[in-house]
Amino acid sequence: MSNTTGSAFKVTTFGESHGAAIGAVIDGCPAGLDVNSAYIQKQLDRRKPGQSAITSQRKEDDKIVILSGVYEGRSTGAPIALIIYNHDQRSDDYQHLKDAYRPSHADFTWEKKYNIRDERGGGRSSARTTAALVAAGAIAMQLTGRSGISIHSYVSQVGQVKVEKKYQDLDLGQIDNNLVRCPDETSAKKMIELIEKIKSEGDTIGGSVSCVIKNPPAGLGEPLYNKLHADLSKAMMGINAVHGFDYGAGFESIEKKGSELNDVFMTDSAGRITTRTNFSGGIQGGISNGNDIFFRVLFKPVATLQREQETVNKSGEKITIDPKGRHDPCVLPRAVPIVDAMAALVIADHILLNRSSVI
Amino acid sequence: MSNTTGSAFKVTTFGESHGAAIGAVIDGCPAGLDVNSAYIQKQLDRRKPGQSAITSQRKEDDKIVILSGVYEGRSTGAPIALIIYNHDQRSDDYQHLKDAYRPSHADFTWEKKYNIRDERGGGRSSARTTAALVAAGAIAMQLTGRSGISIHSYVSQVGQVKVEKKYQDLDLGQIDNNLVRCPDETSAKKMIELIEKIKSEGDTIGGSVSCVIKNPPAGLGEPLYNKLHADLSKAMMGINAVHGFDYGAGFESIEKKGSELNDVFMTDSAGRITTRTNFSGGIQGGISNGNDIFFRVLFKPVATLQREQETVNKSGEKITIDPKGRHDPCVLPRAVPIVDAMAALVIADHILLNRSSVI
Amino acid sequence: MSNTTGSAFKVTTFGESHGAAIGAVIDGCPAGLDVNSAYIQKQLDRRKPGQSAITSQRKEDDKIVILSGVYEGRSTGAPIALIIYNHDQRSDDYQHLKDAYRPSHADFTWEKKYNIRDERGGGRSSARTTAALVAAGAIAMQLTGRSGISIHSYVSQVGQVKVEKKYQDLDLGQIDNNLVRCPDETSAKKMIELIEKIKSEGDTIGGSVSCVIKNPPAGLGEPLYNKLHADLSKAMMGINAVHGFDYGAGFESIEKKGSELNDVFMTDSAGRITTRTNFSGGIQGGISNGNDIFFRVLFKPVATLQREQETVNKSGEKITIDPKGRHDPCVLPRAVPIVDAMAALVIADHILLNRSSVI
Amino acid sequence: MSNTTGSAFKVTTFGESHGAAIGAVIDGCPAGLDVNSAYIQKQLDRRKPGQSAITSQRKEDDKIVILSGVYEGRSTGAPIALIIYNHDQRSDDYQHLKDAYRPSHADFTWEKKYNIRDERGGGRSSARTTAALVAAGAIAMQLTGRSGISIHSYVSQVGQVKVEKKYQDLDLGQIDNNLVRCPDETSAKKMIELIEKIKSEGDTIGGSVSCVIKNPPAGLGEPLYNKLHADLSKAMMGINAVHGFDYGAGFESIEKKGSELNDVFMTDSAGRITTRTNFSGGIQGGISNGNDIFFRVLFKPVATLQREQETVNKSGEKITIDPKGRHDPCVLPRAVPIVDAMAALVIADHILLNRSSVI
Repeated sequence: MSNTTGSAFKVTTFGESHGAAIGAVIDGCPAGLDVNSAYIQKQLDRRKPGQSAITSQRKEDDKIVILSGVYEGRSTGAPIALIIYNHDQRSDDYQHLKDAYRPSHADFTWEKKYNIRDERGGGRSSARTTAALVAAGAIAMQLTGRSGISIHSYVSQVGQVKVEKKYQDLDLGQIDNNLVRCPDETSAKKMIELIEKIKSEGDTIGGSVSCVIKNPPAGLGEPLYNKLHADLSKAMMGINAVHGFDYGAGFESIEKKGSELNDVFMTDSAGRITTRTNFSGGIQGGISNGNDIFFRVLFKPVATLQREQETVNKSGEKITIDPKGRHDPCVLPRAVPIVDAMAALVIADHILLNRSSVI
Repeated sequence: MSNTTGSAFKVTTFGESHGAAIGAVIDGCPAGLDVNSAYIQKQLDRRKPGQSAITSQRKEDDKIVILSGVYEGRSTGAPIALIIYNHDQRSDDYQHLKDAYRPSHADFTWEKKYNIRDERGGGRSSARTTAALVAAGAIAMQLTGRSGISIHSYVSQVGQVKVEKKYQDLDLGQIDNNLVRCPDETSAKKMIELIEKIKSEGDTIGGSVSCVIKNPPAGLGEPLYNKLHADLSKAMMGINAVHGFDYGAGFESIEKKGSELNDVFMTDSAGRITTRTNFSGGIQGGISNGNDIFFRVLFKPVATLQREQETVNKSGEKITIDPKGRHDPCVLPRAVPIVDAMAALVIADHILLNRSSVI
Repeated sequence: MSNTTGSAFKVTTFGESHGAAIGAVIDGCPAGLDVNSAYIQKQLDRRKPGQSAITSQRKEDDKIVILSGVYEGRSTGAPIALIIYNHDQRSDDYQHLKDAYRPSHADFTWEKKYNIRDERGGGRSSARTTAALVAAGAIAMQLTGRSGISIHSYVSQVGQVKVEKKYQDLDLGQIDNNLVRCPDETSAKKMIELIEKIKSEGDTIGGSVSCVIKNPPAGLGEPLYNKLHADLSKAMMGINAVHGFDYGAGFESIEKKGSELNDVFMTDSAGRITTRTNFSGGIQGGISNGNDIFFRVLFKPVATLQREQETVNKSGEKITIDPKGRHDPCVLPRAVPIVDAMAALVIADHILLNRSSVI
Repeated sequence: MSNTTGSAFKVTTFGESHGAAIGAVIDGCPAGLDVNSAYIQKQLDRRKPGQSAITSQRKEDDKIVILSGVYEGRSTGAPIALIIYNHDQRSDDYQHLKDAYRPSHADFTWEKKYNIRDERGGGRSSARTTAALVAAGAIAMQLTGRSGISIHSYVSQVGQVKVEKKYQDLDLGQIDNNLVRCPDETSAKKMIELIEKIKSEGDTIGGSVSCVIKNPPAGLGEPLYNKLHADLSKAMMGINAVHGFDYGAGFESIEKKGSELNDVFMTDSAGRITTRTNFSGGIQGGISNGNDIFFRVLFKPVATLQREQETVNKSGEKITIDPKGRHDPCVLPRAVPIVDAMAALVIADHILLNRSSVI
């Protein structure tokens, strides 16, 4: 019940952190799309571990293999199976955790639900599974890109270091120019310093990723349950460690009044109806209005600390665990391409769904 | 594509603000449930307009009618159709808005999507449609109640007035004791004063509803895309005016470190494995762990002000609109039963889905 | 899980034979469709009981009421709720059957599944529920009609009386010219005589409905599981009393060889690629090829005989039941509009689904 | 939209005849199931080409690889990815067909739908894709087997050679004892002779597979659209070359009366309520009643003849094609494990769905 996302551009994923492979099957990609596997690889490279000093040192080349659905470079309408074989599993690192419940991980809850658990690297609950989504999302981006849509996620906060500038005042072309993927260079430096400090303490830190979708068509989203922001929210909440979501003016405007937040309609110089402001984040009544869509995703700190932690094992005995896996002190830099991917999947889905909205 | 929520306990709704009726069809309610229509009515009464001086004065008795699926007081396994006939429509109030795009409403986006619009009271995009969900949610509550689960939503913030106490320090039995549905009496008074002031200004104000789900079983939710909090988030985002969601420690902990937010496992005096803290909001890896589930829902201020606003009409001409409908200065008090209902629908759904998780 | 059909043009139905009402909610009807309620009524009139001497004498006017989703005569994109209130229930007729298991009815299996049963007129399992589908199908026909598609179901066999002519040799405009809805007048007479004879015996008889869909576009259907004929088959199997389905050459050609059944491609005088024959029934590899689609639906005899039958009650005691309800000796004439409706629902669904098949 | 089957035990497949691999992802298999890969292999071996003189001579060892979802021999609740790498593709055999529309194949319709076609071996439309279903079905059988259910498909007709005995009079343990998988030895011999004769003519022949499901629980299936027989029918119609389906007494009883076909209830010697006859094929009102379920599936002759055929190419020019691929003169013997698999998938799905039917 749980491994498919999307209803027209549907992605079903599989695989565990330390199994043979992880992968995705895209069902519903329209035929005739140019599928650029180098572009998929580029997105995977943005997510893969070992890419910098501030990420996990697991070495995975995360090489994409397309098994089906693409013929002579184009999608055929058949399901597109994507696979990434696992290489640098060190399952022995997890042997000592076989019976342990790591704090704030899924060990305990998975076992409560399923009575059985693949303890190697968190199994299916590992964030490694997001690689399959990044691959699928890269194809969705090739689809949304055809409509001129571009998606720009960036790290907007790490711990107390927050980008104070609005996205409009940032150069979104600079996102990949630093290790932390924050287009505000001053903030980026502070974020990196903070992550290094936190890492040296064996601790972890969270923050937020902001995402801007430029040039979306008006009309995406459905009025009630598949509101565009509802689907974006659900997609983001599916990413490991995400604990919050807001869009448009968001939580920061909670003390503002209606008269301060309403987006007044106007006619622009080209005679096009638009709004003076965009507190709505490009979505009104669940449907995109053609303005930039923007939202924010809260990531809690990574649960695995690089130091000993107390916990209990299956028998309820108090134990101490010492992480031997290779983990991130801060997941934010690697989360950026995941947010990009999930956003692309939602937008691609709604573009297809929208084709049936009128006679 | 858009009017069904849930995958095992499925609810399909229909109806417009000023149409003949609104309603819901519940498909998947297990047979044998005692369906108490007085309880449904009670929840509807908590949501209905005209209930107090700080809500809309539209007069609807919102009387529930059960058309099918219940025989001799119990569900039969057949779909349960619920209907609420509309009475106090004053569609003429909207005649002057036929061609207007009200700021931050769905008028413009609906028309962009569908090329046609039922302008009477916002049509399908009206918050009136949530009455159908409250009715359906009341049946979900009768199902979840059988497992001992109770759901407690309350207003935790209105504008700058915020309940500083944690939910553990509140008497959740007091929620309905004041007009604003805030169990902290001191805050409640300030909230009511604020709403009255805002109303007198012809303005509107938002805030947050917090929700606590007590006594949930462990094991609800799926590890990847149907994470319990992802489904809760999507459900809440489906409510009109909701712009944000967080759970557990949420956005307010964004500056905290992993070592401060991890929930360390322990064995309690009864020998049961639990956690010392509950920053995870009762959900780890997308699956409930048996602790209280809690989350927060952000409502932006109501878009319709009780004063003139500038906007444009379909032709792009600047016009001034004066709301003649009867609207809420603050939607929060009436949002409480809606959050209750959506939470119940998600929990009921996952209880049923979970039945197939193990051999 | 069971009361929705279709995935883009989705129809959810509700209601029992002797409840307050039956109805349907159409979700996914594109906005802008002219919805002609007189046309819906006309289809309902073709299905309603009491229409002739060879059908059930229950008197229901089956008047259609549209509750939502249509504004000023056109669909708005919102769900269309259709309702038919029940009037001529005589639930007392079923009081003596409260504990009886009528042979070849759903009484026993419903109770096995749900532990509770609405015994009045078969409850949800009654063929009365198909009225809601006929209403929904009539709207689907208005959608498919826009593409020039027309759907022609007719009775092709009653007991041993079979129409030997191929559909190409029949005047499909004559279907409603006789009580039995068979466009071959000679066969129709024999069928009516047979039904009258069977009725006088207190017995019942089955047969087949054939359906021809003229002028479908090529490209409808999906290559694997949602093959067009698979969805047609499932839709037909959902109709009460249907026990078989075939399409194209069907079961009657089981002794033929490949060389006799292959449809050889040719170029017609207009330069259009087509096939010389149409043994494929207009569908190849699950996808329509633009030729007429045709299929056949087997209806077993109605289970309720107009005479005493032996059976057991809930306690396993042998009893004799005497039907007091008003039943059809042969369901075929009234099944014609139901087959029309289900075919229209499937075609409408695939027209919408197909919009996403290519870039 | 088209590559997933099932709603609780969901199977998504991918792959083309001459691509890198075909595979399936099972989502919803309960945790804790012993997954026996030797059993999966055994079912694949029953389907694979080259197994006897009367099947295609393509050499594929069809070796199953489990990529995920199984840990230490048991399902974990995570999706189970199954993969079969292709080896003996001879895509050159199809080069001459690049622009040809083979009669009664999906070449033309796929191209009409998608504007692009993978012509190698029929691409996604090839019956080779059913291997993935056989693998998935073998896991479903391990699930259904736990409830004591057994599934027995066999060839009941090839051309004019028909098994006249009822299934009750056959030894279903003998199905695999001959090349044609018919448990009636006399018929089997005639079938083999017929197939050899047809093969020598370069022609093809169809027939029927009958399936008996023994020991099903009562209560499977839903009353309206997911009737058990409707889902079986749809599943079978998804198999390549299937053109018809009936269950219980089926088409052969079309001339019988209600009084001859009703299954009268009785109490058996153990005090259990059952029926005297089983014309209903174990399903009443869409729900299993605990009796044997049986149905029949019509396969048309294979479209590819082993001799020249006339057709047209993309440009509409008349051409002659000579099949160089390696094809079956009669698909029936290899269809038996496919029907087994699809039946198992439907039953497994309904077992899981049924868990939510009562409080």
